[in-house]
Amino acid sequence: MNRILVIGAAGMIGRKLLQKLAQGGSLSGSRIAHATLHDVVAPQPPPGAPFQVRSVASDLSLEGEADKLVAERPGVIFHLAAVVSGEAEADFEKGYRVNLDGTRQLFEAIRRVGAGYKPRVVFTSSIAVFGAPFPGAIGDEFLSAPLTSYGTQKAMAELLLSDYTRRGFFDGIGIRLPTVCVRPGKPNRAASGFFSGIIREPLNGQEAVLPVSEDVRHWHASPRAAVGFLLHAAALAGERIGPRRNLTMPGLSVTIAEQIAALRRVAGDAPARLIRREPDPAIMRIVKGWPQNFDAQRAHELGFRADASFEEIIKIYIEEEL
Amino acid sequence: MNRILVIGAAGMIGRKLLQKLAQGGSLSGSRIAHATLHDVVAPQPPPGAPFQVRSVASDLSLEGEADKLVAERPGVIFHLAAVVSGEAEADFEKGYRVNLDGTRQLFEAIRRVGAGYKPRVVFTSSIAVFGAPFPGAIGDEFLSAPLTSYGTQKAMAELLLSDYTRRGFFDGIGIRLPTVCVRPGKPNRAASGFFSGIIREPLNGQEAVLPVSEDVRHWHASPRAAVGFLLHAAALAGERIGPRRNLTMPGLSVTIAEQIAALRRVAGDAPARLIRREPDPAIMRIVKGWPQNFDAQRAHELGFRADASFEEIIKIYIEEEL
Repeated sequence: MNRILVIGAAGMIGRKLLQKLAQGGSLSGSRIAHATLHDVVAPQPPPGAPFQVRSVASDLSLEGEADKLVAERPGVIFHLAAVVSGEAEADFEKGYRVNLDGTRQLFEAIRRVGAGYKPRVVFTSSIAVFGAPFPGAIGDEFLSAPLTSYGTQKAMAELLLSDYTRRGFFDGIGIRLPTVCVRPGKPNRAASGFFSGIIREPLNGQEAVLPVSEDVRHWHASPRAAVGFLLHAAALAGERIGPRRNLTMPGLSVTIAEQIAALRRVAGDAPARLIRREPDPAIMRIVKGWPQNFDAQRAHELGFRADASFEEIIKIYIEEEL
Repeated sequence: MNRILVIGAAGMIGRKLLQKLAQGGSLSGSRIAHATLHDVVAPQPPPGAPFQVRSVASDLSLEGEADKLVAERPGVIFHLAAVVSGEAEADFEKGYRVNLDGTRQLFEAIRRVGAGYKPRVVFTSSIAVFGAPFPGAIGDEFLSAPLTSYGTQKAMAELLLSDYTRRGFFDGIGIRLPTVCVRPGKPNRAASGFFSGIIREPLNGQEAVLPVSEDVRHWHASPRAAVGFLLHAAALAGERIGPRRNLTMPGLSVTIAEQIAALRRVAGDAPARLIRREPDPAIMRIVKGWPQNFDAQRAHELGFRADASFEEIIKIYIEEEL
């Protein structure tokens, strides 16, 4: 492919994906000639990219905007844009407009190109498509019964992705990212923010608030692993995926206590002392409905690989950000 | 409740539901004062109804039409309207417009009423939300991985229903109907039409075409059982349902051979001789992706009841239609 399109390119994962692409200059073994980067604010081009970059800012949910983006017929489209869980819960209409309508406008725009145009579409879904009660480890045949509007919107987009793929309008793959940890920068409005905060803030000499108890178990992947998933998804042969186009990505299932123990092993005792326990019933209630562990068999078989340990996840943060 | 709204009231299930309501005059133990019947063509009022009836024809997917229907704040809303599977597959845009956008417009209209308005919404979903490969019997935690656009649209509407219920906009319950058999009247555009056709046509002295082999197993309920599901769903206490608002209805798992044997037992050998085997590779391929058997445990526990046998299903057709 010569052209790629990255929607949500100004977000954390988008920026890291583009850095990686700029380093190598190729995707799935083909040289990238041109990348269009889209977001609600114009994304920064990655430094030193050996391909042409065009930055576009628009509202994808508006009629006609997605058509402009796919008019150049990019061979691979990464759709990473989303209103995060906390915001989609706080602003019902915005969540549906961006996460559902925006995604549908994109899929429809691709369909309308027609004339044999059939790009690979890599869509970032989320483990938020699952809602409690859960089995010990959630397998590939477990139902999507989300307990948030964000999870609902992602689950609906997954269904669209499979149907548009089945109908031959594009070649889609949806990847359900674990909670990405350690997120760099400031907290975003995701209710899951503290999973990164309790590592990131202490490593930067700042106090972090832990709003849940230490026995809370959750499913994590580093930003580096997440970018690896995206690149692997872009390159996978469609026939290998089959009709079920949405895959739970591998990850690490760890408790908060295990996160903190890993932090001590990597950075000594001082940072961990900056974690202040301040139970928040609202966040505890939300987190209780979240998955804790998965058996990501299909993704494993298709070659997706998780981080080796939570220590590695912390070291990746230190290496990339500090 | 005093007011009810039936969307899709001109369809077969809608008409039978209204006949039943007209006979009793009440729903969930309350007298019905007024029923609004909606469809794309104005539905016939049920004969002898002891309540006021208003018939409305409009396109529910158009902005503002659903708002008119919910303005009178019906206490129970039955949403039965859908473009059937064959048509949704043949006309991609129409399927999404009616089955997804129409449903969403209805849900949004209810949300916009606000001011504490919180009707019971009974939504007819379908076992088409499931796609092969299947376990021996599909349980309540099996994923929705539809292999048709119709199934995709129903699965998306189910997700919306759960989220709107969780957010408190209404009190929804989605019921996944088995294939309804024996459908009276002319074949519709559903690919499943032959399951009824091989019983109905012979009982009316006409030839029927069987496009699949006799070992095909499928999941059935009579129109009478389906109406029973709707009435039971309207009356169920919301707290008993929990956050997963969509339920696979109980049914009967029988093969085509068992259907034909039941026909012989009920009506002798003559009708069965009118079944002409004419394998249709296109229909065989579609049917291969359909579910064969379920373990509808949650629905059983909530008091939904299937037909006793396929003979009973045939006798119900004879009693009601011949």
